Amino acid sequence: MSAPPLPKALAFDVFGTVVDWRTSVTRESAAFLAAIGRSDIDAAAFADAWRGQYIAAMIGMRKSGRDFVPLDVLHREMLEAALRERAIDPASLDEELLADWNRAWHRLDPWPDTVAGLTRLKERLPIVTLSNGNVALLLAMARRAGLPWDAILGADVSGAYKPDPRAYLRTAELLGIAPGELCLVAAHHGDLTAARACGLQTAYVDRPDEYGGAPAPDAHYEQTWEWSASSLTELADMLGC
Amino acid sequence: MSAPPLPKALAFDVFGTVVDWRTSVTRESAAFLAAIGRSDIDAAAFADAWRGQYIAAMIGMRKSGRDFVPLDVLHREMLEAALRERAIDPASLDEELLADWNRAWHRLDPWPDTVAGLTRLKERLPIVTLSNGNVALLLAMARRAGLPWDAILGADVSGAYKPDPRAYLRTAELLGIAPGELCLVAAHHGDLTAARACGLQTAYVDRPDEYGGAPAPDAHYEQTWEWSASSLTELADMLGC
Repeated sequence: MSAPPLPKALAFDVFGTVVDWRTSVTRESAAFLAAIGRSDIDAAAFADAWRGQYIAAMIGMRKSGRDFVPLDVLHREMLEAALRERAIDPASLDEELLADWNRAWHRLDPWPDTVAGLTRLKERLPIVTLSNGNVALLLAMARRAGLPWDAILGADVSGAYKPDPRAYLRTAELLGIAPGELCLVAAHHGDLTAARACGLQTAYVDRPDEYGGAPAPDAHYEQTWEWSASSLTELADMLGC
Repeated sequence: MSAPPLPKALAFDVFGTVVDWRTSVTRESAAFLAAIGRSDIDAAAFADAWRGQYIAAMIGMRKSGRDFVPLDVLHREMLEAALRERAIDPASLDEELLADWNRAWHRLDPWPDTVAGLTRLKERLPIVTLSNGNVALLLAMARRAGLPWDAILGADVSGAYKPDPRAYLRTAELLGIAPGELCLVAAHHGDLTAARACGLQTAYVDRPDEYGGAPAPDAHYEQTWEWSASSLTELADMLGC
């Protein structure tokens, strides 16, 4: 098989692909659970419950015709739901504590290969976000973690959440390139499937620890992608960066 | 007078404030005019004629109700008009040459203090663009010139050209902050006046060479701004960066 043509830009899924949300949200939630005197609650299970509502929230946004709201708002709703599931009334908690807990998603740590991989890839190609995260969240995350994005694009710039085709197509449009000249880099087969349906190139990065060793919920979408790597530094090798 | 509160983010006008469009477009146009055998045309006057249609084009976009188009498209229309003014039929020229000439705006050089100033300011505060340039243009410019933006925002993200209030207000909204927590940095009194009317803080940077020594077209909007500096490095000093 001949090598696919080099894309003109790389667009990255962020949660799970670039950063390890589960370890970070578990660590943050453990501290907040301790602060409210509920160290008896398992913090990793709490992180899973919080994130676990994510796909349903995306689908719900789309199906209900609800006006677009940034992910920070959805995260807050999902946090309150996760608390209520554990019989904790969010209204009984301090507002500033809740707001700061919600910003745990602004303070996610990169995977060990992320900064080195992005830095090498950026030498050759523009690197942008194509995330359901909002600009404020992604910007705070990038400054804290040292992620060297050329531009932060995504849900609240395109006004659509992945896997809505508008999220992928608007990103290519903003970059002034054809969909086939843009490559999505993601650890999620479902995301890559939607990108391919829009004509984008696709690069899979394996992140077996994203769900703490549990299987990925979209594993059944697995296909052969243009590139498949075990890290962003390996992807840089493959792209000659 | 007490010092104004430090903003939470800095948003930069780009053309004239961060980059020296006139010197760069003159240099590029001289090369393209030579390529079409018209070195008799004064390249600096050509650059001024090209840029000179800019404010009218912005006002025209807004008043005509024309659907939003990226600045790359307006630049192309303005280039063709500048050629026709000199009795050159754009249709007689090679399409690839015209497209490349139009991308002169992607290849603008920064002012001498720009990269050092932005780098220092970024240490303390998020730095983003608030430009009428489109994402593709600003991204190419940033990669070539080494401009270390945290995020590229502006006209085709907000869907509005400055001085439309939506351009300023949408930038603050995307950053998750109040208008009064955002400071526009610009060399243009008209731009700063519109930003102040939206509640933004304002920082003026003097760029006396922007128009080759000719007076700025918006000099009559001059006011006392929260900050006023002769360079981005001086602004960094003022903000304690």
